Amino acid sequence: MPRSIITLTTDFGLKDPYVAEMKAIILSINPNAITVDISHEVAKFNIRMGAYILACAAPYFPQGSVHVAVVDPTVGTKRKLILVHTKNAYYLGPDNGILSLAIKNQTIEDIHEITNQKLTLPTKSNTFHGRDILAPAAAHLTNGTPPSEFGPRVNKITTTTFSQITHNKGTLTGEVIHTDDFGNIVTNFGPEELKLMKTKHTIHIKLKNKKLQLKLCKTYAEVPKQKPLALIGSHNFLEISINQGNAAKTLKTKTGDKTTLYQP
Amino acid sequence: MPRSIITLTTDFGLKDPYVAEMKAIILSINPNAITVDISHEVAKFNIRMGAYILACAAPYFPQGSVHVAVVDPTVGTKRKLILVHTKNAYYLGPDNGILSLAIKNQTIEDIHEITNQKLTLPTKSNTFHGRDILAPAAAHLTNGTPPSEFGPRVNKITTTTFSQITHNKGTLTGEVIHTDDFGNIVTNFGPEELKLMKTKHTIHIKLKNKKLQLKLCKTYAEVPKQKPLALIGSHNFLEISINQGNAAKTLKTKTGDKTTLYQP
Amino acid sequence: MPRSIITLTTDFGLKDPYVAEMKAIILSINPNAITVDISHEVAKFNIRMGAYILACAAPYFPQGSVHVAVVDPTVGTKRKLILVHTKNAYYLGPDNGILSLAIKNQTIEDIHEITNQKLTLPTKSNTFHGRDILAPAAAHLTNGTPPSEFGPRVNKITTTTFSQITHNKGTLTGEVIHTDDFGNIVTNFGPEELKLMKTKHTIHIKLKNKKLQLKLCKTYAEVPKQKPLALIGSHNFLEISINQGNAAKTLKTKTGDKTTLYQP
Repeated sequence: MPRSIITLTTDFGLKDPYVAEMKAIILSINPNAITVDISHEVAKFNIRMGAYILACAAPYFPQGSVHVAVVDPTVGTKRKLILVHTKNAYYLGPDNGILSLAIKNQTIEDIHEITNQKLTLPTKSNTFHGRDILAPAAAHLTNGTPPSEFGPRVNKITTTTFSQITHNKGTLTGEVIHTDDFGNIVTNFGPEELKLMKTKHTIHIKLKNKKLQLKLCKTYAEVPKQKPLALIGSHNFLEISINQGNAAKTLKTKTGDKTTLYQP
Repeated sequence: MPRSIITLTTDFGLKDPYVAEMKAIILSINPNAITVDISHEVAKFNIRMGAYILACAAPYFPQGSVHVAVVDPTVGTKRKLILVHTKNAYYLGPDNGILSLAIKNQTIEDIHEITNQKLTLPTKSNTFHGRDILAPAAAHLTNGTPPSEFGPRVNKITTTTFSQITHNKGTLTGEVIHTDDFGNIVTNFGPEELKLMKTKHTIHIKLKNKKLQLKLCKTYAEVPKQKPLALIGSHNFLEISINQGNAAKTLKTKTGDKTTLYQP
Repeated sequence: MPRSIITLTTDFGLKDPYVAEMKAIILSINPNAITVDISHEVAKFNIRMGAYILACAAPYFPQGSVHVAVVDPTVGTKRKLILVHTKNAYYLGPDNGILSLAIKNQTIEDIHEITNQKLTLPTKSNTFHGRDILAPAAAHLTNGTPPSEFGPRVNKITTTTFSQITHNKGTLTGEVIHTDDFGNIVTNFGPEELKLMKTKHTIHIKLKNKKLQLKLCKTYAEVPKQKPLALIGSHNFLEISINQGNAAKTLKTKTGDKTTLYQP
């Protein structure tokens, strides 16, 4: 019998027993499931950061993987818990936008609310639906329960988006969508925006009111240590980095900051 | 052959190779074992915190799981290493109270000291019994070695307790038993104490000499963002929280603080 | 079919999706692989710390395990990615010294550069070879692909070493090779150096210009709480510790500091 993969993306941190309790429930229902942690260090209540991290990692998992995401500031309220079934994979989480970046551009088969009491824990807390509803639902999915058994069809779900990139007199304005643990500043610009700006070897970018002229590199080590650079990173976004340094600390940026590409 | 679950709860942190070395030993002895991290971020040497986290998570694991807990400030001294076999599961750790909250209220089958040299590493350090004794013992257990082979029976073990809840002129005094990564302040009061205090919609609680009157909610989002509330949390304890905030930071509490329920 | 173990040692941290993406690739190629995290909290770009942690943990894993280490400040440049096959295990990483402490004293079967495009991801980023080259190569290894298929033989690889221990007028000078999460100060002295210094019950050591006379203990708890001590730790190195305290913080040492054993 093929074992099945269930990934977990949460803002729970690793100190508390919460992540282990989800895995315990999963293994109780499907002893052959393989759980893989995507991240448990999403900033507390930060749906957009969770959505970004899930959207980065999910495409690398095998066809049919089950992705559970729990950043759920309104846990226990009327917000739905949903199961999105696409041609590639299954995504479970609260209907608050956390799944929306991962399923963008995918062919959706169907979406169901998760309401079937037989597929969740018999006793449910009001504050930990990750353990009591999502973990058992994910495990039952890997056991072969079809999506339609989890609850009624849902037609419209909440989406989260990064700010659209806007054009204005030859400039493009976007934002910092992620700051990674190395301090790399990941923007929502990609190769297309660089083409639009006719960028070849140098990018001109405004970050926190600072105008930077940076070499467009292929690798971090193309500039001397501690010097800034730009490159298209491993998720196909424009990154501002410092070779063996921490760009976000040095340039004092944070996720959400506006940033502008311009021509000098 | 059924694979077996071994959980790990330690104060080792995740930077060092220590946790991986325990898993390496386990997989060397039982290649089919599944190891699940409960937490490696128990505060250093904090037996009570380790005991609490283990006691929270262990009940969610399948019957027959093996739980290894290593918060062991007196490693290498005469303190025993023990194996507690209950109707539900197996618990291994130093005899310093770390296992006592998890096995409370369980039917104990037998308790053994772990002394059998054939079931531990041939060369043992004095400072890392988690790797050299507990990990191999746990792995042998999952291979089917009966508890009685690990060493002599033990009749009495060390227990750790949270301070008893005390009554005094219509007040109940307990303590903060855990501060989770969200800053939720978990007390050792539960639904029974609320019943005793005839609490319906509002609780009156003294925390750090501050008297608080809080709405007793079902979910965090029942009060506006950044406002405090009380609720019975997902482990059935009374929690003081701030909706999408950090109650422990805001109220400057820490684990171990006394707290009092009173009637106004 | 035996499942195979792939260990991961990186400086990626646990916040970002990077570690999960490596595991996703591994499970896509070998669904039976077991991945074990050694550490993802190697200090950023610190090759020597990564080398030390890998060298500590690797020997405890079963024969034939595959160890992937990614501390790779010059990712994407001409530095090679290599596969070292020893009598014990397989080691994959950049050729920058990260593997050198782990393979020291092992019988090397052969070393290959990893260049075969068929055994790596079809689309490769310039900045994340851990995911795009090393993870798939490791997974193919566990599927039985022989080392010789990964690329041309390599004869000479980069090594990293800890500073040699030097003799001078009856003193031995070494260094702090690791500071663990407990604050234990791990030196590169071992039992042989203690023998040379005719140490019995007391060691005399200079650390950060402070001369310390410490009891040579077997366990941390042999001295009162918060008192300093010395012992041979669980990886056979001399450690300076404080019983239930943090020696590195108290003594203000850091990895790389020189330290001297002397006779009074």
